[in-house]
Amino acid sequence: MRTRVAIIGAGPAGLLLAQLLDAAGIDSVLVEQRSAEYVKSRIRAGILESGSVQLLREAGVGDRIERAGFEHRGIHLQWPGERHHLDFVDLAGKSVWVYGQTEVTKDLMATRERAGQLSFYEATDVELHDVDSDSPAVTFTDADGRAQRIEAAIVAGCDGSHGPSRHFVPERHRRTWERTYPFAWLGILADVAPSTDELIYAWHPDGFALHSMRSDAVSRFYLQVEPDEDLTAWSDDRIWDALATRFALDGWTLTTGAITDRSVLPMRSMVTSPMRHGRLFLAGDAAHTVPPTGAKGLNLAIADVALLARAIVTWLADGDTRLADAYSDIALRRVWRCTHFSWWMTTMLHRHGDDFDARLQLAQLQRVVQSDSAATELADNYAGIPIEGLS
Amino acid sequence: MRTRVAIIGAGPAGLLLAQLLDAAGIDSVLVEQRSAEYVKSRIRAGILESGSVQLLREAGVGDRIERAGFEHRGIHLQWPGERHHLDFVDLAGKSVWVYGQTEVTKDLMATRERAGQLSFYEATDVELHDVDSDSPAVTFTDADGRAQRIEAAIVAGCDGSHGPSRHFVPERHRRTWERTYPFAWLGILADVAPSTDELIYAWHPDGFALHSMRSDAVSRFYLQVEPDEDLTAWSDDRIWDALATRFALDGWTLTTGAITDRSVLPMRSMVTSPMRHGRLFLAGDAAHTVPPTGAKGLNLAIADVALLARAIVTWLADGDTRLADAYSDIALRRVWRCTHFSWWMTTMLHRHGDDFDARLQLAQLQRVVQSDSAATELADNYAGIPIEGLS
Repeated sequence: MRTRVAIIGAGPAGLLLAQLLDAAGIDSVLVEQRSAEYVKSRIRAGILESGSVQLLREAGVGDRIERAGFEHRGIHLQWPGERHHLDFVDLAGKSVWVYGQTEVTKDLMATRERAGQLSFYEATDVELHDVDSDSPAVTFTDADGRAQRIEAAIVAGCDGSHGPSRHFVPERHRRTWERTYPFAWLGILADVAPSTDELIYAWHPDGFALHSMRSDAVSRFYLQVEPDEDLTAWSDDRIWDALATRFALDGWTLTTGAITDRSVLPMRSMVTSPMRHGRLFLAGDAAHTVPPTGAKGLNLAIADVALLARAIVTWLADGDTRLADAYSDIALRRVWRCTHFSWWMTTMLHRHGDDFDARLQLAQLQRVVQSDSAATELADNYAGIPIEGLS
Repeated sequence: MRTRVAIIGAGPAGLLLAQLLDAAGIDSVLVEQRSAEYVKSRIRAGILESGSVQLLREAGVGDRIERAGFEHRGIHLQWPGERHHLDFVDLAGKSVWVYGQTEVTKDLMATRERAGQLSFYEATDVELHDVDSDSPAVTFTDADGRAQRIEAAIVAGCDGSHGPSRHFVPERHRRTWERTYPFAWLGILADVAPSTDELIYAWHPDGFALHSMRSDAVSRFYLQVEPDEDLTAWSDDRIWDALATRFALDGWTLTTGAITDRSVLPMRSMVTSPMRHGRLFLAGDAAHTVPPTGAKGLNLAIADVALLARAIVTWLADGDTRLADAYSDIALRRVWRCTHFSWWMTTMLHRHGDDFDARLQLAQLQRVVQSDSAATELADNYAGIPIEGLS
C-alpha cells in the first residue's frame, strides 16, 4: 500500500505525529509492534510541560487534560528537616500538568480511530527499506500473519529506545552517547489519596524518594534502589517504611494504601545523532532517552514531534525542505538541554559517590531554595523551555 | 609574652585579621613559619570579589587596589568557535577586581609594620596548647633560635592547608571532606600585555585554558594538564602552541612574550568542620581549600576573617560570645556554597570522563550564555554572595 508518512510506533510520539499530519491533510499509516491494549496500559511519565499541554490542545486532545488533569504551580524540594516549595509560575511564568502518559495515549488513540486512518498493531518483523532513496518503504507481518509493505514519502521512527528504526541510520553516519546511572527506581502505584498537593522530590541519606500522583485517589511513589534490586525483598511494609523515612517532616504524615503495581525502572541516558537520515526521521525515545528525574522524556518526544510535523508538512505540502534539513540540529539542541537538566536533577537528588558528593548536593539544594536565579533556572527547565514550532 | 589574639599564619587571612583587630583596639601577635620575603613573593590568586574589595577598603588597605588594580565587569566564556561575554554588573549588580594576592599581602604587611604590632617570621616548631581551656598558648622557636611562648585569650589558625593549627581540633571532634581532581593546572607568568580585556575561561577538547592578567604588561595563563605532569616536557613553544590552540577564535590573536615563571598547581578541595574548637578559630585555607577555577580561595578567606574579626571583637570588647559560638556554622554555610561553585566551575570547564560528559559540559556552557537565570547564577556566585558582617 501507499501513504505519505509511514509512522513506526504508536506511543504518544507516533500518535501525536499522526494527528498533527492528519490535521494538515497528510495521510499516514501507523505500525506498532505491541498490541493496542498493551500500549494503552503501560505506566509511564505523568508530568506535562505547559508547552506540551498547549500543543496537545492545538492537536485537539486538550479537553480531557483540563477536565481530568491537575495543574501544578511547582514542586516541593526536601532534605532531612526541610521542605521548600518552588513556585514555577512566580519564578518562570509557567505551570506543569499532572496527567499520565497512559491518558495522553488513550486520548490520541481515540482521535486516531475517529479519523479513520490505518493503524497496524502487533506488527512483527518490522523493517525499513531504502530510507536514503526517494521511495522508502516499511515491511512487516501484520497481526493476522500477512506480509505487508507500505511505500511512503517519509518514514518517521517513533518506536522508542528498543525499536528498530534507529538502526536504519547507517552506523558510519550515526553517533550514540550513553550513560547508565548506578541506581534505579522502585516505582509503585497505590490506591490512596496523595499526601501532598504537589510533587515532593526528596534527598535523603538512604536515597532519593519522589511522591507523585495520578488522581485524587491514586498516588505514585518512587524509591532510589540498586540497579539489580530484588523486588521480592520489598514487602509492602518495607516500602511504606522507606517512604515514611525519606519523606519524614515534623507535622506531616504519609497516608498509606493498597499497592496495585510495583516495578524497577533502570536509570539511563542515551542520545543518538543525527535524528534524520534521508527520508527517515527519528522522534522521541527512538533518538534519546533520559532518566525520569525532571520528567523530560514525554515532553521531549512531544517537542520533537511538534518540530517534525511542521518539517514534514512544509516539505510534502509546499515542497520546502529547509525545516526537514534543519530538523536534526534544531531538535538536538533541545535534546542536549533536557539531557543536561535530567542529568543535573538526577545527580543532585540521588545518593551516589562519597560524603563530599553528599555535601555538594545539599549545598546545591540549599542554593536552589535561597537564590532567585538558581530557583528560576530549575523552574524554567522543569516547566519547559519554549517548543520550536509551537504557534 | 601575653597578647589578646595569637594569630598563626601571616598570609592575607592572618594579616587582615590582625589589621581588623588592631582597628578595634585589640592587640595581636603574628606567628609565621615562612620568611616575610617568601610570603610576599609567592604567586597566588588574582581576583577579588567586590565585597572583598569593600572589606579591604574598610580595613584601610583599599587605596592601592583602586590605583593599581583593574575592575572587570565580567568574564569571557569560550568553547571551540564561540566566545561569549558575561557581564556581572548587568546580571548581578557586582564587579570583580584583578589585583594579585601578592599585592594584598604586601599592602597588609606594610600596614602591620606601621601599626608596630609584633610579628614573628621563620618560626619553627609551632605548637598550640590548651585551646579548649580559658588560657590557650602558642609556643615556637623564633628566627634567632629562641624558645617563645605566647599566652592569649584567643588563637586564630590562619596558617593554610599545610599549617599545624587545624590539627589542634581533636580528631574525635573534627570531620574532613576531601576531593582530589584528576587534573592539574600548568600556570605561567609572561611579560606580555594581556590579549584580552577580561579573563577568558576556555573549554577545549584538549583541556581547559584560562587567560588571566596581573597588569598592563604581565599576563597569567593556565593550561589543564595531568596531575603528575612533567614540567620539563613543556617548552615555551609547546606552552604557547597549546594556549593558541585552546583560545583559538577567528579574528583574535594571542600575543606571546617571555615566560618568567611556571609551575604545576594541584586541584583539590578540602573542608574541615568545625572551624572553632574552644578558643581556637580557623580561617581561610586552614579550614578549607577550593580548586582555583572560580577564584574563590582568597575571597573565602577574607569572608571568614570579616566574620571572625567581628566575633572576636564582640567577645573580647563586649563579653558577648554569641557570634563566636555561631562562627563555625555561619562560616561553613558560605564555605559549602563556594565549594560547590568551585566544583561546578571546575567540572564544567575541565575535560574529564567520557564523550557524554563533554556533551553535558557544552550543553551547560550554552545554557549559561543563553539563559538569564543560568548566567545570573554564575555571575552572582563568581562576583560573590554578600559577606556576613560587612557593614
